Amino acid sequence: MTEKTQTITAINNAIAEHPVLEPLTEVSYQSGNDELAERLIELRAWLGDDLSDLEALIGDFTQQGQAADSHLGWQAASHLLERPGKRIRPMCVLLAARLGGLEMTEAVRNVAVSCEMVHAATLLHDDVIDEGTERRGATASRVVYGNSASILAGDQLFVEALRLVEETGHSTLLSSLLGVISEMIAAEALQLKKRGHFDPDKKAYLDVLHGKTAALFRWGLKAGGKLAGLPAESLEILGKIGVNLGIAFQLVDDIIDLEEESVLTGKDALADLRQGKMTWPFLVACEADKSIEGDMKDLVSGEKSLKDVDLNQLIQRIHATGAVEATRRFARQQGDEADKLLAKLPEGRARDALKVVIKTAIKRAR
Amino acid sequence: MTEKTQTITAINNAIAEHPVLEPLTEVSYQSGNDELAERLIELRAWLGDDLSDLEALIGDFTQQGQAADSHLGWQAASHLLERPGKRIRPMCVLLAARLGGLEMTEAVRNVAVSCEMVHAATLLHDDVIDEGTERRGATASRVVYGNSASILAGDQLFVEALRLVEETGHSTLLSSLLGVISEMIAAEALQLKKRGHFDPDKKAYLDVLHGKTAALFRWGLKAGGKLAGLPAESLEILGKIGVNLGIAFQLVDDIIDLEEESVLTGKDALADLRQGKMTWPFLVACEADKSIEGDMKDLVSGEKSLKDVDLNQLIQRIHATGAVEATRRFARQQGDEADKLLAKLPEGRARDALKVVIKTAIKRAR
Repeated sequence: MTEKTQTITAINNAIAEHPVLEPLTEVSYQSGNDELAERLIELRAWLGDDLSDLEALIGDFTQQGQAADSHLGWQAASHLLERPGKRIRPMCVLLAARLGGLEMTEAVRNVAVSCEMVHAATLLHDDVIDEGTERRGATASRVVYGNSASILAGDQLFVEALRLVEETGHSTLLSSLLGVISEMIAAEALQLKKRGHFDPDKKAYLDVLHGKTAALFRWGLKAGGKLAGLPAESLEILGKIGVNLGIAFQLVDDIIDLEEESVLTGKDALADLRQGKMTWPFLVACEADKSIEGDMKDLVSGEKSLKDVDLNQLIQRIHATGAVEATRRFARQQGDEADKLLAKLPEGRARDALKVVIKTAIKRAR
Repeated sequence: MTEKTQTITAINNAIAEHPVLEPLTEVSYQSGNDELAERLIELRAWLGDDLSDLEALIGDFTQQGQAADSHLGWQAASHLLERPGKRIRPMCVLLAARLGGLEMTEAVRNVAVSCEMVHAATLLHDDVIDEGTERRGATASRVVYGNSASILAGDQLFVEALRLVEETGHSTLLSSLLGVISEMIAAEALQLKKRGHFDPDKKAYLDVLHGKTAALFRWGLKAGGKLAGLPAESLEILGKIGVNLGIAFQLVDDIIDLEEESVLTGKDALADLRQGKMTWPFLVACEADKSIEGDMKDLVSGEKSLKDVDLNQLIQRIHATGAVEATRRFARQQGDEADKLLAKLPEGRARDALKVVIKTAIKRAR
């Protein structure tokens, strides 16, 4: 067996045993990051059954929606939950807790899964708002069950997330999570306001990114650390790492939207543009090439439809400005900042593992 | 001055001083319940500034949506909150607290207003789901700000309601409120499932009613009593009274939908039928007159539109079955049950006041 074949075998075995790591490990492997894939396998071994515990709890929620007497909202929620996700948010909670020496407890599990539930709730509502048609490689819940059922599905998952946190008895975690949901709502509202208006505004983009993505990563890492009793300064640092990680994660998503086929990403190619949303590479490309700005303006305002534009050529012109490299550099810079912050936290396997997660978020190809 | 003129003057003065009672007092007066209107004025005098405190807090939320930097979700929420509501749910919380000897505290105020916020949140989402066009005598938020903004508005008000309860430090109240929101979601989902399918199912109707209306009344009355430290048996009784009151309240709403002009109700005449929803008088009329059942079937399934049917004649035929009287009897029966339960609670002004609220809910003409 060649070294490469051995790696593949190891990955396959690991995946078969613990399917939760599949999405992350597979993307690392597919993007040629064999070393990263191996680190992820080590991570799996170290986290042991904790990840399976998370999946089991998420599975309980999924089954609730598949029960014969479940309501339409639950069914629509289940449709999303049963798709494998990267579960990067819950994993952050686990690792932050371990950083403080706390292995799996019911509170850690609840808080970890609450992150996934809040994330899923916002996806359900955002897909209705943004008229999204695909999610996690499948037809969006709102297409299958209707917008109305998806609204109720999001409401239901918000309730479940808050219940999970309430059950831990940590009221400060509950109030901070309510604050984070409020940030997420405000960010989605800002994005909604911008829709259909061409406004290449980097500050507005970053505001949206902080609210929609970074805030929940920040909360998850701080919450995990708090459950483990880490001191306030460490929680601050974890929060900042969460922001860096969230920003990097979204920037890579922006790149993927420009690069991948819909079959790989689970999203329409150029879905963001189709929905009239600006992304970081679009913003950089507009700054660099005014003819792109003109085309983008027509597309976002709806004066031209995607059919009127040579898409391949537009994508090539965007690439030619170096916008994708600039976005990747920006993401890497976030990763570097996170690494610097990590160095201030207690060393050990948890810290190493967080480093792997950050690297994976940046290097992933989908 | 005649006695009648004196009453009107007294009402007008009271309303000018405490606008919060306007909707309730005015509807009592308009429906010829002068005595009830006077009892409501006494109630106002007794509750003193507490009702104004509630309005002030609701006003803070309204202003948040009117601030220059408020987001679209907040704006859509404000549009609903600034319309005067009957505030019957918050009033129940106040009175249940007073029944236990507790006057206004921050906790009572927070819990009372949280009821109004949860109610408003569900109205915002329900109007999107049911394609409602009018609410509280004005154009629905979703028409003015769009469905997307209304989804975010509902999310935001759920968050605010939960924050208010979380701030009280009573974690059991928070978890029971999450349970109630869950019931409300399930009931709306059940109603959604029935839409477009003609299914004159009284049990399903009552299930929806319990979840959509009665559950929040139940919670509000129990929560007010709990804050005042009432014993478990009293809380149980208050909860049951809440269910009776909620059912009566909805039944009267059903009647109003059949009787009033849209300008008075703030709802489209026959709005329920237009949305394909069954109401209690419809169900009773279908049982009594199979020709009505046939017409209703065509209307709800969309085979006939409202234009194809002689509406006035249909309404007359429904009235001819005695369905409206039967519904009013059902509502009165709920009121009688509530009165019987009230008799088991400590006597005094709070109990008398709750009796007035129940009577008002049943006798109101809108």
